[in-house]
Amino acid sequence: MPDAKSIRPLRAAEVTEWGATADVVIAGYGIAGVCAAIEAARAGASVLILERTGGWGGAAAMAGGFVYLGGGTPLQQELGFEDTPENMEKFLVAALGPGVDKAKIADYCRGSVEHYNWLVSCGVPFKAEFWGEPGWEPPHDEGLMYSGGENAAPFNTLVPPAPRGHVPQYSDKRIGQRGGGYMLMKPLADTAESLGAQVRYDTRIRRLIVEDDGRVVGIAATQFGSEIFVRAERGVVLATGSFAYADAMVEGFAPRLIGRPAAAIEEHDGIGIRIAQALGADLAHMDATEVAFFADPQLLARGILVNGRGQRYIPEDTYPGRIGQATLIQQDNQAFLVIDEQSYEEALGTVTATPFFRQPPTWAAESVEELEAEMGLPAGALQATVDTYNRHAADGADPLLGKKPQWVRPLRGPLAGFDMRNFTAGFTLGGLRTDLDSRVLHVSGEPIPGLFAAGRCTSGLAAGGYVSGASLGDGSFYGRRAGVAAAKN
Amino acid sequence: MPDAKSIRPLRAAEVTEWGATADVVIAGYGIAGVCAAIEAARAGASVLILERTGGWGGAAAMAGGFVYLGGGTPLQQELGFEDTPENMEKFLVAALGPGVDKAKIADYCRGSVEHYNWLVSCGVPFKAEFWGEPGWEPPHDEGLMYSGGENAAPFNTLVPPAPRGHVPQYSDKRIGQRGGGYMLMKPLADTAESLGAQVRYDTRIRRLIVEDDGRVVGIAATQFGSEIFVRAERGVVLATGSFAYADAMVEGFAPRLIGRPAAAIEEHDGIGIRIAQALGADLAHMDATEVAFFADPQLLARGILVNGRGQRYIPEDTYPGRIGQATLIQQDNQAFLVIDEQSYEEALGTVTATPFFRQPPTWAAESVEELEAEMGLPAGALQATVDTYNRHAADGADPLLGKKPQWVRPLRGPLAGFDMRNFTAGFTLGGLRTDLDSRVLHVSGEPIPGLFAAGRCTSGLAAGGYVSGASLGDGSFYGRRAGVAAAKN
Repeated sequence: MPDAKSIRPLRAAEVTEWGATADVVIAGYGIAGVCAAIEAARAGASVLILERTGGWGGAAAMAGGFVYLGGGTPLQQELGFEDTPENMEKFLVAALGPGVDKAKIADYCRGSVEHYNWLVSCGVPFKAEFWGEPGWEPPHDEGLMYSGGENAAPFNTLVPPAPRGHVPQYSDKRIGQRGGGYMLMKPLADTAESLGAQVRYDTRIRRLIVEDDGRVVGIAATQFGSEIFVRAERGVVLATGSFAYADAMVEGFAPRLIGRPAAAIEEHDGIGIRIAQALGADLAHMDATEVAFFADPQLLARGILVNGRGQRYIPEDTYPGRIGQATLIQQDNQAFLVIDEQSYEEALGTVTATPFFRQPPTWAAESVEELEAEMGLPAGALQATVDTYNRHAADGADPLLGKKPQWVRPLRGPLAGFDMRNFTAGFTLGGLRTDLDSRVLHVSGEPIPGLFAAGRCTSGLAAGGYVSGASLGDGSFYGRRAGVAAAKN
Repeated sequence: MPDAKSIRPLRAAEVTEWGATADVVIAGYGIAGVCAAIEAARAGASVLILERTGGWGGAAAMAGGFVYLGGGTPLQQELGFEDTPENMEKFLVAALGPGVDKAKIADYCRGSVEHYNWLVSCGVPFKAEFWGEPGWEPPHDEGLMYSGGENAAPFNTLVPPAPRGHVPQYSDKRIGQRGGGYMLMKPLADTAESLGAQVRYDTRIRRLIVEDDGRVVGIAATQFGSEIFVRAERGVVLATGSFAYADAMVEGFAPRLIGRPAAAIEEHDGIGIRIAQALGADLAHMDATEVAFFADPQLLARGILVNGRGQRYIPEDTYPGRIGQATLIQQDNQAFLVIDEQSYEEALGTVTATPFFRQPPTWAAESVEELEAEMGLPAGALQATVDTYNRHAADGADPLLGKKPQWVRPLRGPLAGFDMRNFTAGFTLGGLRTDLDSRVLHVSGEPIPGLFAAGRCTSGLAAGGYVSGASLGDGSFYGRRAGVAAAKN
């Protein structure tokens, strides 16, 4: 009797009874899985999705719903933003590296407009309204937003900026907590099921089933404690999400994230990665992580963010996920925000999608000298930072980091200080190495026959940096590719 | 006929003729391989080493020869330094993390004195002389030195410092360029061969040979263009070094090191890692890198090191490899050294093992204002840094970073500036996941039968940080374990 706990591949010859069969079997019913299902079904394949939880959605349905798209989508055009696949590619190579898969980024950018149209054709709604204020998400149902620091230093001087964060519209965020991620997933799941995709819920995948020649022909899973063997006539698609909740994997590959998983769901246990590794699948960028930073960007842009030595380190008006990554990886998770009373009041008067990040200041002080003492910094350290900032801010400039003039103003009068140490959390970006057809690559460089993967169990666009919408973006884009390729297999 | 270019495992049943047989077959004749050979031979096994080049040594023989040892070695004791395994362990956990393999570090520290004695018993000479000046290596044949920042902030306040960089003695470094690494390898290679270990040079390993039950029973290799199949009756030991020269692996796992491999040899192409991955072996810490910084520590300690924003970021008197890592990973490879004329002259009068790092300054300036303009920094940025430094240096203190008082002195008068951007290079530290018996672990967590590994093709003590001597240290220590375990298999 095969060991139901093992993650090692099971020889097909050992399977005595197939509990289910489909042309394409998909593990995971999040963004990558649903897109694979749609395309596989449209290509004429019978589709069976195995989902561990009791419903569709995965991490995607909990997310803000950003899909990173550009190159001149109809939404960008309608809102008056010029963009080209070349500019999008140039930006992503700069923002997501070093070490990006350049072929994948180029491919993704060239296919981006078509992908937008495809999502719309599946019923995903995007409202033609732009939100231009600093924030993690649009506060209402606006459909387009900067989501990667395209319009902030250093990128705004490298590539003409265009907003590429496309957000599905929701009717009213307060009703039933249906965010953009839900509104992305819902029409896609409806589409998949209208095309005949079948789903087995509460079904946890355990390992791959292979022929003696190495071809993947199925998945062994458990459902309510019983083991079932699911036959895939044409291909298996892994779409099981990140390894953010696999403690041993996080410790072994991305240890800065130990104890701080976020924006992932507990089902993200790395199983898809591990069962493919057991077949010799190659990995990439296992240390890369998305990093959230629990601060309100409206506050950040108006203040100065300093590290544990009282030094500024990033333009405060950039994409806050970029600030999170820099804080966690380059500043050992040490950050303080300093803002003067006037700017603080101004920030409080703005609209934000994240009001819960507007906590009261940790410290209030009449002077920099007083504040740096409160913060436990060496005398003069913060003062030196503020003096240099103010000197140039008087001219509306920030030559040190390039914050845009609209946010640059000397700090004056009473000050507020926010202790933002250990304000980060995130999810993992590394995973299986795949090609442009979402075939899982063996460490030899050759595809593993019958095995496909997409979404956060793969290494996608992001090698080190991140932009909001990269995961739903490459998950949906390469999910589709996986569905097409598996159906044709 | 099997494909000689493939890295996939070869089924033993397909081997028609074994070209050689030994109880223990070792791939790679560097530090891990030689130690495995000695212990396997002493355990009664016949040993065959397959070495790609024409001679023994690997990267070890080219290295400075540091072996990181402590816990109260006879050398430490003779030189009057107190140390305990507990202090050594506490330091290594702090310095080599986050995400270290705590069991491995504890094991290594507990076995360290015995390992020192073992090396001495094999003929490795350590001269009982301590070198206490800042430097990459001792300038003469001194046998002990700080090699990880133990006596610098922040560690010197966490753990009682002890020097643990044990360096084999050489007679005269100028004669034949025989450094500490050669003097480590030479007696070990002599020992291995006196014990009957056989060697096949010019033999390049290609893939593992496995029984149908998954047990590793040999290696397929090529020698002068012909394929040979080498049978291992008890076990195969992989000791093939890092992947610093495998461009695709560096790009996929440790992209900050792209184009800057160092302290590794071109044979470090990751082959040992890849052929084990093809069997489902697990990996760890693939992003971790040792990073050299091409600067003279005598100069560094006396100056201030600033990043691309003119800010100090690390105590300049710490282990220079720690400075290299911080510079590459946290400061985007941007660094400038600023030193005043008096301290510069003083540094030039000191003894160093790396005189070639004493290049003339990039800039000379009469004032900080002039220098910051020359360096292209925003007005006032470097001035603010120097002002804060000088303010506390006047009291002999460095509250910002904790540089030791002996190196703290206000910068005064004419200044020299050194452009140290892109001054880094290094080698990779990630690799196969192994247990304390050097068994290669499958992604399932179980050992792969018959397969052992040690040295830089494995993930050893270092998960993120580094200390000089960690690689020759864990390579020799777990090389021995691999030899013992393979021989007993």
